[in-house]
Amino acid sequence: MTILELLARKRDVGRLSTAEISRLIKDYTSGSVTEYQMAAMLMAAYINVLDKAELTALTDAMLNSGDLLDLSNIEAPKLEKHSTGGVGDKVSIPLAPMVAACGVTVPLLRDRGLGFTGRTLDKLESIPGFSTNLGLDGVQRMVSKTGLVMAGRPRNLVPAASKLRALQDVTGTVSSVPLLAASIMSTKLVGDLNGLVLDIKVGEGALMRTEAEAETLAEPLAELGRAYQLKTVALVTSMKAPLGREVGNANEIAESIAVLAGGGPDDLVELTYAIGSEMLQLAGVAQNDEAARQLLRAAVGTGAAMQK
Amino acid sequence: MTILELLARKRDVGRLSTAEISRLIKDYTSGSVTEYQMAAMLMAAYINVLDKAELTALTDAMLNSGDLLDLSNIEAPKLEKHSTGGVGDKVSIPLAPMVAACGVTVPLLRDRGLGFTGRTLDKLESIPGFSTNLGLDGVQRMVSKTGLVMAGRPRNLVPAASKLRALQDVTGTVSSVPLLAASIMSTKLVGDLNGLVLDIKVGEGALMRTEAEAETLAEPLAELGRAYQLKTVALVTSMKAPLGREVGNANEIAESIAVLAGGGPDDLVELTYAIGSEMLQLAGVAQNDEAARQLLRAAVGTGAAMQK
Repeated sequence: MTILELLARKRDVGRLSTAEISRLIKDYTSGSVTEYQMAAMLMAAYINVLDKAELTALTDAMLNSGDLLDLSNIEAPKLEKHSTGGVGDKVSIPLAPMVAACGVTVPLLRDRGLGFTGRTLDKLESIPGFSTNLGLDGVQRMVSKTGLVMAGRPRNLVPAASKLRALQDVTGTVSSVPLLAASIMSTKLVGDLNGLVLDIKVGEGALMRTEAEAETLAEPLAELGRAYQLKTVALVTSMKAPLGREVGNANEIAESIAVLAGGGPDDLVELTYAIGSEMLQLAGVAQNDEAARQLLRAAVGTGAAMQK
Repeated sequence: MTILELLARKRDVGRLSTAEISRLIKDYTSGSVTEYQMAAMLMAAYINVLDKAELTALTDAMLNSGDLLDLSNIEAPKLEKHSTGGVGDKVSIPLAPMVAACGVTVPLLRDRGLGFTGRTLDKLESIPGFSTNLGLDGVQRMVSKTGLVMAGRPRNLVPAASKLRALQDVTGTVSSVPLLAASIMSTKLVGDLNGLVLDIKVGEGALMRTEAEAETLAEPLAELGRAYQLKTVALVTSMKAPLGREVGNANEIAESIAVLAGGGPDDLVELTYAIGSEMLQLAGVAQNDEAARQLLRAAVGTGAAMQK
């Protein structure tokens, strides 16, 4: 099968086989399928959609497009969080150390900016001297040592996801549910996680405009989680107004530190605790929401979260 | 309007305005819209189709994407021919000198190869010393002097058409009717023609597989012709088997010369005379098919066509 045959098939509402998708992602990662060919394929896949089998094949192909992150030496439960992003959403920054301070390992690896909102890496890099570029060894060492890392996804970890995401950003093909689902899940599955909490934003400031749209994304994410035996919980939360009071990279870091110090605006604090609670429960560290929130409050109160 | 907004609109089955299409083609020609963005746009336009207003706008934007060919000093009627191409289709090569020998100016300007069939330029270049790269001045001089030119379309004559065609070739977006129609007509309209005969191929060896498909292409071509007051006749002819007996660039030149010498295989001779007859009638040089064929036979019999 040549790339032209695959393009014509998807264009004409046909299906691609698992082997074809695997080959396509391999050839795109190596560069023998060009950016303009993949751009045409992304648009065809956006308009004509990918079915469940194609979505699973794409996730798998992306997951296996580069190195794997080996965290098998870590005994603590490993949990991650993913937000579809919105203005003022800095939840990950106070959340990760709070959860890590409760004995859960949090390997938080992120891509660069998506669409119009700054992302976690951009915010962290506003801290002078903070390096988000640790490489695969650096990430593994940091996670083993502290149970927490907040860094850029190393270059050869799911490289197809970064390459595809960057192309989607400039070709109007970001908001496709199957493409988003494959991108999100492949980058999470690579870390050998025990659980994942998804925060799917809904509203004018988000990729998903309605609750119905958010549900259509939550469903395939949860299904992929089940397929890979990764416990997945999805929260659908409002992004009608910016989260917190601060917008802008350095400002959002200041607001995140305020949360770690026990302050911060109510909406940001509540969402951070809500997601943290789900993570602690999925990890088996807390039996219910109340117990989980108590642990998180203690991590903040004792300064353990700030220390992390 | 940014390119991302236009991509999202066409992706979501919306329409682009005339001004937006004009800007898009200008920015693509200059390079500020990238190949991968245009590839995504081509796929969206292929799947979601362009309506009549969009097709007219695209044709006009392409037509005005570079220089114009000024043949206003030529008093003889100017006629061109276009075939959608097929294996063994070398009709243009004997046809152009035969028609030119009957007093009609034939400015035959062609693109490089499309899809799997070699094209006129590739065939002509198999003649040692034959240059198809004359530049705009060279084309104008040659047409004025001999009433005939068979050359590559100069680089800055409808440059958007060449750039788009090359991108379509590698992104599986060639066979879109509106994209084909805009491409064909913009490259013909630039020459200030009096008439155009289209040979739309149908069958397994052609872009259009069925007669119904061919009709869907013939219709917008004729409509664009009317809009620009260019007399246009479309023939739908069979491409179930290769045309003539020879395939391969040098072989097809030999077979073309056989036709000019009064020989050649029946199917090739018949199609050459049928198209030539339409051209002479459109030009007003012959009143009916019989008179036209007589003129063409005389041009061959006297050696005038070969001389051209």
